Amino acid sequence: MDGGKEDNNANNTSNVVPKSSKGRKKETGLGLTHTKDGNFGEWYSEVVTKGEMIEYSDISGCYTLRPTSTHIWRILQKFFEPEIEKMEVEECYFELFVSNKSLQKEKDHIQGFAPEVAWVTRSGDSDLENPIAIRPTSETIIYPKFSKWIRGHRDLPKKVYQYCNVVRWELSNPTPFIRCREFLWQEGHTAHATKEEADIEVLQILELYRRLYEEYLAVPVIKGKKSELEKFAGGLYTTTVEAFIPNTGRSVQGATSHCLGQNFAKMFEVKFEDEKGEKALAWQNSWGYSIRMIGVMVMVHSDDKGLVMPPKVSAVQVIVINVPHNDSDVNRKIENACLETVEALCAMGIRVKQDPRDNYTPGWKYAHWEMKGVPLRIEIGSRDLENKQVRTVRRDNGAKVNVPMAGLADTVKVMLDDIQQSMFLVAKDKRDACVQVIKTWDEFIEALGQKKLILAPWCDEEEVEKHVKAKTKEESGACKTLCSPIDQPEMPEGTLCFASGKPAKKWTYWGRSY
Amino acid sequence: MDGGKEDNNANNTSNVVPKSSKGRKKETGLGLTHTKDGNFGEWYSEVVTKGEMIEYSDISGCYTLRPTSTHIWRILQKFFEPEIEKMEVEECYFELFVSNKSLQKEKDHIQGFAPEVAWVTRSGDSDLENPIAIRPTSETIIYPKFSKWIRGHRDLPKKVYQYCNVVRWELSNPTPFIRCREFLWQEGHTAHATKEEADIEVLQILELYRRLYEEYLAVPVIKGKKSELEKFAGGLYTTTVEAFIPNTGRSVQGATSHCLGQNFAKMFEVKFEDEKGEKALAWQNSWGYSIRMIGVMVMVHSDDKGLVMPPKVSAVQVIVINVPHNDSDVNRKIENACLETVEALCAMGIRVKQDPRDNYTPGWKYAHWEMKGVPLRIEIGSRDLENKQVRTVRRDNGAKVNVPMAGLADTVKVMLDDIQQSMFLVAKDKRDACVQVIKTWDEFIEALGQKKLILAPWCDEEEVEKHVKAKTKEESGACKTLCSPIDQPEMPEGTLCFASGKPAKKWTYWGRSY
Repeated sequence: MDGGKEDNNANNTSNVVPKSSKGRKKETGLGLTHTKDGNFGEWYSEVVTKGEMIEYSDISGCYTLRPTSTHIWRILQKFFEPEIEKMEVEECYFELFVSNKSLQKEKDHIQGFAPEVAWVTRSGDSDLENPIAIRPTSETIIYPKFSKWIRGHRDLPKKVYQYCNVVRWELSNPTPFIRCREFLWQEGHTAHATKEEADIEVLQILELYRRLYEEYLAVPVIKGKKSELEKFAGGLYTTTVEAFIPNTGRSVQGATSHCLGQNFAKMFEVKFEDEKGEKALAWQNSWGYSIRMIGVMVMVHSDDKGLVMPPKVSAVQVIVINVPHNDSDVNRKIENACLETVEALCAMGIRVKQDPRDNYTPGWKYAHWEMKGVPLRIEIGSRDLENKQVRTVRRDNGAKVNVPMAGLADTVKVMLDDIQQSMFLVAKDKRDACVQVIKTWDEFIEALGQKKLILAPWCDEEEVEKHVKAKTKEESGACKTLCSPIDQPEMPEGTLCFASGKPAKKWTYWGRSY
Repeated sequence: MDGGKEDNNANNTSNVVPKSSKGRKKETGLGLTHTKDGNFGEWYSEVVTKGEMIEYSDISGCYTLRPTSTHIWRILQKFFEPEIEKMEVEECYFELFVSNKSLQKEKDHIQGFAPEVAWVTRSGDSDLENPIAIRPTSETIIYPKFSKWIRGHRDLPKKVYQYCNVVRWELSNPTPFIRCREFLWQEGHTAHATKEEADIEVLQILELYRRLYEEYLAVPVIKGKKSELEKFAGGLYTTTVEAFIPNTGRSVQGATSHCLGQNFAKMFEVKFEDEKGEKALAWQNSWGYSIRMIGVMVMVHSDDKGLVMPPKVSAVQVIVINVPHNDSDVNRKIENACLETVEALCAMGIRVKQDPRDNYTPGWKYAHWEMKGVPLRIEIGSRDLENKQVRTVRRDNGAKVNVPMAGLADTVKVMLDDIQQSMFLVAKDKRDACVQVIKTWDEFIEALGQKKLILAPWCDEEEVEKHVKAKTKEESGACKTLCSPIDQPEMPEGTLCFASGKPAKKWTYWGRSY
């Protein structure tokens, strides 16, 4: 690879078959009409549709996931599944439907979910005798089975997971991936003999979720614990990985790992005979991540040209484009070089495609594949052939570098790794630049106005959080606790809560949230 | 492997720690209370629950798939997915819900499915403005998108698939795997420029379905074409792989590959501009297989001791059981030999487990793992140690063979292949023995009474099939066409239809069906 960044393909493109790249562009509707800084919401909708990640349906809040999206989903699954199988979590598939009776068993839980539950009341032309609910999550479906399967301490730990769809009929603004009425997720459910064992697992899973975000999606997250107000309905405590969208100043609950304590075990009679022959309640966890991850990835990385995909999850990692020449002999050589490049990269396990279509100009193709977020573009024109090189263009930062054809696949592998790393570091720098440590209410209000991710000393009292929410409520929502980082910064003695003035108990992130 | 089949482990077991194997058996409820020949329906329910494949839920027709089942499902997927990806079929995920408007678009289609559609009419406490349907299949969800995505001939062929759940609220007897209200399936949907291309794909997919049944589940199937009366609602023609259950004399539609013709394309405006610039309707296919496959596998292979799993799909292929000895030194050596055996088999990629639990007798364990259908059991006792061998016991035919410890893993690999082959051949012989070729109505009625799979010359007229159905109708259903085999036997000139006496057009299988 050489460091030459001069635009030598200006020469290549001067020989292209004369088609108006601009005209084409308009005609095919390439390009976004909104910018990320200008109108984030509209920009996001455009990116996920024009980037061919989703297609809207005629039912609000329900979306088709196109191959670009399902590919990411599968890659995440391929990492996660073996990891939890090492932990001896077994795959099951539980039912879509839950009876009203089961759903009602845990009072706090159903209160949390009831407003969003979709009910089936009819089949064909007949009313069902008892309406049934579509799972918003599966605790109330799975735990009656746990109650059957678990008898003695030898049946513990019991650990199951499933990948499935769930339905939450939310009334607020639906957003593809981020807030859908139907979404795909992974959910894990486990029962343990002791709280200690359950506690350990909660954090093991949280670490896997962090790795999905940071190592695969190149999105930095904060591992933390939710407040009492924000924890999972019916659970004991909730841990989370929180992502942050600098453009909107909003946080996203990225994935959660809950310790349910013994509440559900009591309601669903998940009991076991311990080694002394006495009946005991199991300690339970549940944990899940969803396609929301994909939306966060798009929000963090993509730009005004379209999607920007981290190489590890991109269905196409490299796109090879021939820059045509007027001389048909030269043209044939260019096309051969493209083919050879594809074969060489493919042999190295790189996911590579070429775009040899002769009814589009190179310029059109560049824009087309930029919209799809392909991490690296390789252009090959006549000048490149002469110099035994190719021109590479990175999607993440636009860097153009000429790379010798000899050893190209190895170089590309290194470049893809570098793009992955660099996307994470850039995103992390941006996120870190938004973190604002505050100590007083005034600083808090100022930081909130500046869309900061606010880290504040807090007394950890529910009433205080409610008070802050009430005082910051506006159309775009209220400011609330996001999480108390597991990795707590030092808290100097005598530090007071920014909101109540009482002694602070922990550092906690605050902000608006998706 | 030696051929000695004398029961030399009788000596091993004489030294076992004295626990009543019989008492244990009763206490833990091992063993089936119904037989396959005695009461097939009850036997099947018992096998799938005691074999830990499914768990009943409190909603009729909905079942939990336990790890034994999901493992089979995944193995099938791992074969099928790369095969269709070679055919450039791309994975998508389409919505669970379909609007009434879309659902109503193809008249025959909705007529076929309407009585079984589950309707969501409420969210939380509010009635939905427009009730929405849960997909019974996804044609009406996917084709409005095809209409958007397909513009010109370059967009064809368009090929997508998904693995998902569908809901058909059937009122007849639900049966785990075979007839469920919610079930998992794979569905593929493709659009082509020409009928020829669509036709070819229909059969390519059908061949993959045959391979899933025959190569993975060891279940013989017949590839054939459905009659007009039995074809997919709204389609042009339907091909099927038909399986047969000798014990009940019933056939099962195993998986189907449909050519939809241009009916759906017309209704959903799936049009493209052809090379001449003219608008044309696409030719469409849809095809699917479901967890029904797993039920067929259980019905065909399992016996009065429980499940019998084909090695290729079994989560556990080999179970290693120590036969304890009174001498603790010997015991330790036996346990070490078990561990070494597990390690050696594991290293060869064999899915092996041991059952070292000391609170159960070997006899109890044998019955336990037989119930779960594990293809091969390895027993190791003191006599085996002395002779540097292990005792192997096949689940499919009970054959007991002593195998030298040296080279054990290689021998076991061969044995597992042999079990897989042998299970298929035994099932095929049984199925073939049930096929009865008939020529007249009297022969037909006799064969039907004998629960045969009837192959008859037929005039291929809808009215005649309706007539046969009416005349054979009883509580357990009517006899109907199953399929006309693609591989047609010779039809001597002048052969007449068994039912109408008109000239026969094709050989067709008839029978009762699940």
